[in-house]
Amino acid sequence: MATKHVYHFGGGKADGRADMKTLLGGKGANLAEMANLGIPVPPGFTIDTKVCAYFIEHRGKYPEKLESQVRSGIRRMEKLTGKKFGSRTNPLLVSVRSGAAISMPGMMDTVLNLGLNDETVEGLAKKSGNERFAWDSYRRFVQMYGDVVLGMKPESKEEEDPFEVIIERVKKKRKVTLDTELDVDDLKSLVKLFKDAIKKRTKKPFPTDPQKQLWGAIGAVFSSWSNDRAIAYRKINGIPDDLGTAVNVQAMVFGNTGDDSATGVAFTRDAATGEKRFYGEYLINAQGEDVVAGVRTPKPIEQLQKEMPKAYRQLTRIYKLLEKHYRDMQDLEFTIEDGNLWLLQTRVGKRTGLATVRIAVDMAKERLITREEAIGRVTPFALEQIMRPIFSPKEYTAAVKAGRLIAKGLNAGPGAATGKVVFHADDAVARRAKGERVILVRIETSPEDIEGMHAAEGILTARGGMTSHAAVVARQMGKTCVAGCGDLKIDYKARRFVADGKVIKEGDAISLNGSTGEVLAGEIPTSPSEISQVLVEKSLDPKKSEIFRAYDQLMRWCDKVRRMKVRTNADQPDQAAIAVAFGAQGIGLCRTEHMFFGEEKIQHMRAMILAEDEKERRAALKKLLPIQRKDFEGIFRAMDGRAVTIRTLDPPLHEFLPHEAKEIRAVAKELGITPKKLEAKIEELHEFNPMLGHRGCRLGITYPEITEMQAQAIFEAAVKVKKKGIRVKPEVMIPLIGNVKELQLQADIVRDVAARVFKAKGAKVPYLVGTMIEIPRAALTADEVAAEAQFFSFGTNDLTQTTLGLSRDDSGRFLPIYQHLGIYDADPFASLDTTGVGQLMRIAVDKGRSVRTDIKLGICGEHGGDPASILFCEELGLDYVSCSPYRVPIARLVAAQAVL
Amino acid sequence: MATKHVYHFGGGKADGRADMKTLLGGKGANLAEMANLGIPVPPGFTIDTKVCAYFIEHRGKYPEKLESQVRSGIRRMEKLTGKKFGSRTNPLLVSVRSGAAISMPGMMDTVLNLGLNDETVEGLAKKSGNERFAWDSYRRFVQMYGDVVLGMKPESKEEEDPFEVIIERVKKKRKVTLDTELDVDDLKSLVKLFKDAIKKRTKKPFPTDPQKQLWGAIGAVFSSWSNDRAIAYRKINGIPDDLGTAVNVQAMVFGNTGDDSATGVAFTRDAATGEKRFYGEYLINAQGEDVVAGVRTPKPIEQLQKEMPKAYRQLTRIYKLLEKHYRDMQDLEFTIEDGNLWLLQTRVGKRTGLATVRIAVDMAKERLITREEAIGRVTPFALEQIMRPIFSPKEYTAAVKAGRLIAKGLNAGPGAATGKVVFHADDAVARRAKGERVILVRIETSPEDIEGMHAAEGILTARGGMTSHAAVVARQMGKTCVAGCGDLKIDYKARRFVADGKVIKEGDAISLNGSTGEVLAGEIPTSPSEISQVLVEKSLDPKKSEIFRAYDQLMRWCDKVRRMKVRTNADQPDQAAIAVAFGAQGIGLCRTEHMFFGEEKIQHMRAMILAEDEKERRAALKKLLPIQRKDFEGIFRAMDGRAVTIRTLDPPLHEFLPHEAKEIRAVAKELGITPKKLEAKIEELHEFNPMLGHRGCRLGITYPEITEMQAQAIFEAAVKVKKKGIRVKPEVMIPLIGNVKELQLQADIVRDVAARVFKAKGAKVPYLVGTMIEIPRAALTADEVAAEAQFFSFGTNDLTQTTLGLSRDDSGRFLPIYQHLGIYDADPFASLDTTGVGQLMRIAVDKGRSVRTDIKLGICGEHGGDPASILFCEELGLDYVSCSPYRVPIARLVAAQAVL
Repeated sequence: MATKHVYHFGGGKADGRADMKTLLGGKGANLAEMANLGIPVPPGFTIDTKVCAYFIEHRGKYPEKLESQVRSGIRRMEKLTGKKFGSRTNPLLVSVRSGAAISMPGMMDTVLNLGLNDETVEGLAKKSGNERFAWDSYRRFVQMYGDVVLGMKPESKEEEDPFEVIIERVKKKRKVTLDTELDVDDLKSLVKLFKDAIKKRTKKPFPTDPQKQLWGAIGAVFSSWSNDRAIAYRKINGIPDDLGTAVNVQAMVFGNTGDDSATGVAFTRDAATGEKRFYGEYLINAQGEDVVAGVRTPKPIEQLQKEMPKAYRQLTRIYKLLEKHYRDMQDLEFTIEDGNLWLLQTRVGKRTGLATVRIAVDMAKERLITREEAIGRVTPFALEQIMRPIFSPKEYTAAVKAGRLIAKGLNAGPGAATGKVVFHADDAVARRAKGERVILVRIETSPEDIEGMHAAEGILTARGGMTSHAAVVARQMGKTCVAGCGDLKIDYKARRFVADGKVIKEGDAISLNGSTGEVLAGEIPTSPSEISQVLVEKSLDPKKSEIFRAYDQLMRWCDKVRRMKVRTNADQPDQAAIAVAFGAQGIGLCRTEHMFFGEEKIQHMRAMILAEDEKERRAALKKLLPIQRKDFEGIFRAMDGRAVTIRTLDPPLHEFLPHEAKEIRAVAKELGITPKKLEAKIEELHEFNPMLGHRGCRLGITYPEITEMQAQAIFEAAVKVKKKGIRVKPEVMIPLIGNVKELQLQADIVRDVAARVFKAKGAKVPYLVGTMIEIPRAALTADEVAAEAQFFSFGTNDLTQTTLGLSRDDSGRFLPIYQHLGIYDADPFASLDTTGVGQLMRIAVDKGRSVRTDIKLGICGEHGGDPASILFCEELGLDYVSCSPYRVPIARLVAAQAVL
Repeated sequence: MATKHVYHFGGGKADGRADMKTLLGGKGANLAEMANLGIPVPPGFTIDTKVCAYFIEHRGKYPEKLESQVRSGIRRMEKLTGKKFGSRTNPLLVSVRSGAAISMPGMMDTVLNLGLNDETVEGLAKKSGNERFAWDSYRRFVQMYGDVVLGMKPESKEEEDPFEVIIERVKKKRKVTLDTELDVDDLKSLVKLFKDAIKKRTKKPFPTDPQKQLWGAIGAVFSSWSNDRAIAYRKINGIPDDLGTAVNVQAMVFGNTGDDSATGVAFTRDAATGEKRFYGEYLINAQGEDVVAGVRTPKPIEQLQKEMPKAYRQLTRIYKLLEKHYRDMQDLEFTIEDGNLWLLQTRVGKRTGLATVRIAVDMAKERLITREEAIGRVTPFALEQIMRPIFSPKEYTAAVKAGRLIAKGLNAGPGAATGKVVFHADDAVARRAKGERVILVRIETSPEDIEGMHAAEGILTARGGMTSHAAVVARQMGKTCVAGCGDLKIDYKARRFVADGKVIKEGDAISLNGSTGEVLAGEIPTSPSEISQVLVEKSLDPKKSEIFRAYDQLMRWCDKVRRMKVRTNADQPDQAAIAVAFGAQGIGLCRTEHMFFGEEKIQHMRAMILAEDEKERRAALKKLLPIQRKDFEGIFRAMDGRAVTIRTLDPPLHEFLPHEAKEIRAVAKELGITPKKLEAKIEELHEFNPMLGHRGCRLGITYPEITEMQAQAIFEAAVKVKKKGIRVKPEVMIPLIGNVKELQLQADIVRDVAARVFKAKGAKVPYLVGTMIEIPRAALTADEVAAEAQFFSFGTNDLTQTTLGLSRDDSGRFLPIYQHLGIYDADPFASLDTTGVGQLMRIAVDKGRSVRTDIKLGICGEHGGDPASILFCEELGLDYVSCSPYRVPIARLVAAQAVL
């Protein structure tokens, strides 16, 4: 017996199954699956993918006996439809489509209405009672067949399609503009003209024998597997060339044969909101493309119940069956031909972030899927979406249409923000104080701008990447941010910028779409996400928000599943409180230097920097001590017993000094020194490569009194809070360690100060001393370092910079080219380079544990909030990830997914 | 039987041996060894180091039976000397000295002349016939014993020594100025006054019983092991605290008992020149310290032959025996007491670099040592010394005495240089052209200063460390350099600097001692080393230079032994020629960018940088092509068939642009653009961390046409030179690779260009394409990289910066503190951090070889010329090290030592 290559489906059964995708392609397997479920699909058969391989290998030949198997397939279709292939009275028409195991949308060819010729068209006309429909079908077939099978389709887009040229000519002659205005005679003449054109070009008449037509179409589909477009698509998407395509031959059904015919699309649940309701639209006496084209307005699916109650009942039964069978929301295509319902396609329906979350949670509650599956189905992007304030879609679209889109940068901080333009942090604060909403526009931001960023609705910068200062701080603050918007020409002096030829002055309103990176002139209204309204603003009753309920349920399931803890990077009590609301279990990184940027604090900090000797320095530090202590108290209270990792001073000191002449004069005056002296200090502190310079623990080692002060502030605050009955667990983290001796020196100070404070205050708190792993040498010598460190926290921002030898502030000039060339798949500052940086992390984890089995391991770089990176952290077995407050839910989700 | 703790020596035999240093200390073991050799050493015994541990553990108590062993030791000394401890007629006097296994010079205490009291002093007077000698010995003993044993020595330097106060008082009363002017009565009264002072302070009389004195001194020596100074010294030098000291009790001998007594020091060979001759000096009727003190002028050792022929003959026999026994040049101390020769000490003699080389070579030729031992004995520092031009020592000393030493910086480039101060590279070139010798003084240097540095005799900078631009380039050029001389206040505008309060103006002469880092006002004459005179200047007949002959012999032996090849870092034909003269076997790093700093070349380079598009850029590159080709031709010719590794463009482009306003105007004019446009470009190219920025292969990837031009120049030059009958082996090296895909892209260009050139020119040359390993990620993914790279060259300068997260240009601010605190033992930019950077190198070597077993491995960072780093390279099994031309002999030596 010959090998089976043809798989029938229809009439309530099929040879194939859903799990035979490799053999039958996705479409063929799904049609078989539907047929097996007893769902009415137009009958047909699939020629398997092995034939494709054979066809290519044997240069257009088919395996033995394929012809007879195809013939038997046609016979079976004839039996099931009661029609006959080539019949002049009741002709069977078929579609011939490709269908590979992996979908390659738009890459390969399709022929519809196959089986028509000058004789069968008459049968179709008579049978359908619709001559125009019959001739229009014939016209479409000849055109499609000419294009796909007979090579009439122009190779380049510049060439005109010969058939379209003919149609235009006829329409012009007939003085009509729409195809639908052509009458039966026009269509007949078109068919003739098409055939003539084909004959002229191919030197052969158009094939009239349906069998010949069929084999021509089958061959064209197999050949299309090897066309240039398909090959290129497979190369880009990593699809193997030897996979091959199947060919599906299926009986045509028509929704446009009269008023008891219809066609429509439907979703088993609401794709926008996730609500559990059957949702869709249809058109009576129409073809599928009419629903999409939008010429006629389709009717909501509910009306079908009245118009075609039988079909509607059947459809309802089928959609429920399909959702239950496929265990996910389905997107259906159906046609009703002469009152008979046919399902043409079912697939998993696309949906918004909101619908993603809600459907996943609902289905788990309905026990359609497991909770684990529900967790797995929510993409981080979906969760992110439901947490963003958004623009009203209508008004946004209107604004874009009105030409108000003036620039596009990086979508650095998600969300929507609208407000008046300011160029300086001070102005942002001042206007905010007056109740205005502002957008801070800077060439780039620096730590001095923190308060201004805090005051602003959104931040727009002309320079800097996804992990630039502006982007990182914005995400941590949950601010919308468009960064690295190179089209902006900012003129600080004139207090204006130019973009897209438009001049935007200070005080003019703009809107930032942080999800797309788009910048629009003028205001567009926004509102915070419902989740924020419940958790942060507490302005919404959780019971009144379906979104919140779905979110909350999902998070609770995630928390049960995940192994890794989720902490947050927060420097202020209010940030910490938000993070806790979002589920943070501790602080993984509290940057003490951010505390120094308050109005009064920075003055003492500057005095400390300008001190001539240790004595003066200690005097300035003494003034900073109570301020820091108060900061830590606030943090400890907000975290209410959760672990708090506090990093000692990290940035180079010059970051605390002013850089512009005017400011230098002002600060000098404040400090009671000459501007010249201040300038000299700034010059003295200048570094060629500040990233690799005098910062991190190097500050604490050269000025141990700074570490002493910080340790004192930490432990005094901890003891004070403890005495109020709140548990405190400080973890003191020494940054930029490259050598265990650095850590020893700093840890000794911290432990000495702790002992002194505990003795003086008569109370103790448990604490840990550990280190950032952010320099390759620290990772390489992690066994030595772990002897001294009670925990490691991977500072993957700096670790990426040093491991890749790449400055994140400067790499914007060539990193886009690098990504374009495929040197790095993703921005290594956004998603962990697991090959390089990850290798060092693994070395550090292994070496660290080899010396201290219970060493606590975490990550506090930007990557702590990146889904791919979180998966890698689970693989490494880290104890926690730490990310910005607004990323905490994402991290909770992904940490759970990582376990599954 | 009690454990043996006391080891006798003297009378031609000893209980101990030279290899018992841990037990007997260095001094005790050596005295035993000499005694065993039959050499007359004053008899005595050593109390072993175990007693020290016991003494400390038991808080001042001794092991059982020690007392009886000591007593027996004294009895044996009495027998051998014929004197008696405590005798009133012929007293035995002893010295009590510490002696640890590792020498701790000046850290611990000594007591001489022990055994004297009011009675035995009379015996000594009578026996020696020299009452003043006896009382002076007694006076010294009381003073020393008071200080060391009875705690009279002041604890701080500010306090006055009570004995010195008494001496001054007596001298004043007696109206004399020198100790030697005091007569017997004065000395007697001093002894009394000393004793009174001791009694007053300690409330106890001075011990008169020699046995008591002895135990007091032994206890003091053991206690001194635990004094603060000794503990600090051990901590700094890494000597374990539980090593303990031994105590040596030895009979005193006196060279000042009369005219048949003498004392002296001698070397078995000339310590300055290495010449094989007995060399030393002595004084008749004198004590050891008199030879050193320089009050009396000692006589050359030859005269002893006439004055004391018997002792001289004996001494000659002994020095030959000792040199043969110890197989190295010895430094002897001897005393002749009443015509009897006693050897007090022998040790390996210190010597100059010249003597080191010559003695090692001579001894190997004499078959006293093997050739391998000879190689092992020459320290890199010694070899370095003989290669430096030096100041005339007399004139130098005179200049220092005259107060001309004005500053001290880092001894960054060895040698001596003298010339007129200039502050700008242009001025250096201009003055040099006029035949003047100049010293280039800069706050720091940059690649723009290259020609000025070349024109200068030496370079002096106010900033930068041992691997700053100035230091690296200077060493490569063989220029003297004092770097990081922070005391300098340089005022470019006024064209002067201030140091040590002195104003040095442009045109004033200064002298740099690159070996010490000293800067002196005024000129001091210099001359090049004899080796340079032979090899480079060819002004000296090699046969006429003993130094050269020793050097040459040593190098030939090294070349036979070593496994690693030695290459050089050179960018110009003249540098390459010098390196070849010094034995370089190839170029390991030719920095193409250094070639761009010529007057005419930089103009095209700047035009290339300012190009608006690829077309303009290619036009500028076309002009650079013939210039580069010519450069490479010169290099290939100079290297005459040796391998040449050429690195493609590496530094960030902004390094080629001017930075000062005046220069910007000039360059803009030259380029025919506005200064504003040039400024805009400079601003555009500005980077926060240029070290991690747009440089290395990142340039070649964003501007592939640059790599194309460089490859074309390389291969066209190679083919041209080959056609002249010279073999050529270019190795094209792509810098700053972090990802194999970077290398692939660049290697493809190089190989394409090579094929094109070979086809066009009808000739081929063998070549390799490889990469620098200078970014941690490259090392971590070396298996991937090796699939593409035919060789790796470790760029340890940048690898150190990235692995340690340390900018070499900025670390000067804290690295000295780090070294002081012991965080890094050595400057990691001077000597490879084998723990961190070395670990990455090992990973790269292992992974590289796992993929490509025959991969060629080398090092071309500054560490390639550092002895400790070269040893590590041998351990890794690298194929070659590459260093600056003047370091090549050092590398040849150390590469040989590494094998042994």
